[in-house]
Amino acid sequence: MERRDFVKKAALGAAAGTLLAGCGNNAAEGGAPAIQTGGPRLRWRLASSFTRSLDTIFGAADVLAERVNQLTGGRFTIRVYPGNEIVPAFEVLEGVQKGAVQMGHTASYYYIGKNPALAFDCTVPFGLTARQYNAWAYHGGGLELTRELFADFNIINFPGGNTGTQMGGWFNREINSLGDLRGLTMRIPGIGGRVMDELGVSVQQIPGGEIYPALERGAIDAAEWVGPYDDEKLGFHQVVKHYYYPGWWEPGPNLSVYVNQDAWASLPVDYQYALEAAAAESNMYMLSRYDAQNPAALQRLLAEGVQFHPFPNDVMQAASETATALLEEEASDPGYSKIYNAYKQWRTDAYRWFGTAEQSYAAFAFGTAEEECALAPG
Amino acid sequence: MERRDFVKKAALGAAAGTLLAGCGNNAAEGGAPAIQTGGPRLRWRLASSFTRSLDTIFGAADVLAERVNQLTGGRFTIRVYPGNEIVPAFEVLEGVQKGAVQMGHTASYYYIGKNPALAFDCTVPFGLTARQYNAWAYHGGGLELTRELFADFNIINFPGGNTGTQMGGWFNREINSLGDLRGLTMRIPGIGGRVMDELGVSVQQIPGGEIYPALERGAIDAAEWVGPYDDEKLGFHQVVKHYYYPGWWEPGPNLSVYVNQDAWASLPVDYQYALEAAAAESNMYMLSRYDAQNPAALQRLLAEGVQFHPFPNDVMQAASETATALLEEEASDPGYSKIYNAYKQWRTDAYRWFGTAEQSYAAFAFGTAEEECALAPG
Repeated sequence: MERRDFVKKAALGAAAGTLLAGCGNNAAEGGAPAIQTGGPRLRWRLASSFTRSLDTIFGAADVLAERVNQLTGGRFTIRVYPGNEIVPAFEVLEGVQKGAVQMGHTASYYYIGKNPALAFDCTVPFGLTARQYNAWAYHGGGLELTRELFADFNIINFPGGNTGTQMGGWFNREINSLGDLRGLTMRIPGIGGRVMDELGVSVQQIPGGEIYPALERGAIDAAEWVGPYDDEKLGFHQVVKHYYYPGWWEPGPNLSVYVNQDAWASLPVDYQYALEAAAAESNMYMLSRYDAQNPAALQRLLAEGVQFHPFPNDVMQAASETATALLEEEASDPGYSKIYNAYKQWRTDAYRWFGTAEQSYAAFAFGTAEEECALAPG
Repeated sequence: MERRDFVKKAALGAAAGTLLAGCGNNAAEGGAPAIQTGGPRLRWRLASSFTRSLDTIFGAADVLAERVNQLTGGRFTIRVYPGNEIVPAFEVLEGVQKGAVQMGHTASYYYIGKNPALAFDCTVPFGLTARQYNAWAYHGGGLELTRELFADFNIINFPGGNTGTQMGGWFNREINSLGDLRGLTMRIPGIGGRVMDELGVSVQQIPGGEIYPALERGAIDAAEWVGPYDDEKLGFHQVVKHYYYPGWWEPGPNLSVYVNQDAWASLPVDYQYALEAAAAESNMYMLSRYDAQNPAALQRLLAEGVQFHPFPNDVMQAASETATALLEEEASDPGYSKIYNAYKQWRTDAYRWFGTAEQSYAAFAFGTAEEECALAPG
């Protein structure tokens, strides 16, 4: 997805609960109510890049805010604003940097114009999956490296959600080989779009809300968005029936929580801990909710006659080689190459491990399910 | 792994930090110190089933305890005890049920003798992966279902960590087909052991600390434990060189946090929130730390001449059919069949979705890495 995609979407008003909602509390049964009586009352604002209609991405910030409220006895409240309400959806970094808001929730690859290395805080084509990113960030030095980048922007960043591997998009015809891409007109932003351009695709930049009419009238042949759960809401399946996977340009995009450094430094240490813990929970929340919602959406799309296809291997191979060449272009910059080299090494080691137990299990188990269920009737 | 495996292992004393350790706080710079001054001082005890030497599993409880301490200004402390120190390692459920300790950290499949359905809180052969389990637990009704089971034991349960898909174990010879399993002597506990037994394996129950000498003197031909990071510590690679994957009997085992219901009900609501948030963080911590540690351990094992192999497809197929038949055996019990049917439906739907974008990406990307790196020289 890209910054402008979110701008025109209507707010559907989905308010997310906490990760462990329904666990109950005993306040009504005589347990002591809120106990934090010593901290300051703080009212912060968080600018999201996303609309409420993307309820799982947007909801991660709501989960964070609700948990911080709970953990501070209601004394530290964070109000979450959708993209463009108080800060332009794709200027969240600037908004947090300048202190217009204390916090943001966004995708760091929106800001690669400021520093190409910021992409590694989110995702790059043929990059890390969600689990591999979390391992790198929390335990492999990744967070330290991205925080060095964000220090230049007066921001401290926290992992704050993931979509998992996205889908490869909707096509009005079958793609049986690399040659079938040539001459297609496709809506795809970012580095993925640059790769597609090199593969002969005519790349279009179209906001999310305008994709459906463009597909319907044939102005474009193809478009990518997120995955079954989010794509279904935009109705693409009503006008095109071929849904390709994977979205190799977003194998595990991390969404980040930004906190202005001065605001962070002003927090009581308890509030810092509350914010850290809530960010980690929002990270778990978003991925697990996508993993819960996408299977049912897939079922509904199959019932609507959508045909799911894998990209042909020659498309994957050409895209991989082209993406690598693009990522290498910046490598003469020492700041970029420092994080790029660390990321590449992590990826190599992680791929090798995930290629054993996890992958062989998945190949056997999911493949069996796919066969039984006749996933791809086309 | 099985209950007795943990008993004899030496404590290595690895203390885990918080998930976001190193994030810093500003207490020394003038920010207010701990602010929760109104809550009661509580000192709880948590009985883990694990030894300190399994630092990632054991460490998840330390991470939880440290975060709860931080979130309550040091007023609510939880002391974590290794298995057998105050509660027998595999009687943690009973210890929490009876209030000998307020909390536990354990694997619910240790207690299937009390109720076979408790396995679904942890893992079953050919069950859910880590991400699929988290999706089910947090957003698919899974936690509600397992909490119904635990209510019978006066316990409220929380997801509290995952190992990811485990390895299939160490063998003193190559397994090229199902027939090669027949007559082998293998240390493998639980339902996986029951399946292996039906496949012609002579199944042995041996504590973790006794596996190495048994392999060394040829008393057993094969043994399973966890994965590269944990297995390396026990030194199996020094005596056998064939390391098989996947551990289809543990595709994504969840470790659970247990809280005694009466103790839970006595907590101020703020402390309940702190415990909920810390449990979610410990869940993220454990999986991401395994995902970070296993790749490096894999590298070291390769350097020691270990040969990694996938199980032959006929082994996987026969194991899958046998496991399904075993899981169906209990289905006449209404309590079991309620959760089993929900779990099966979730698995079918999740497998179908994970078989698209996530799996096709993995097959391409990890496969490429494997080829480049000549993972399996054997």
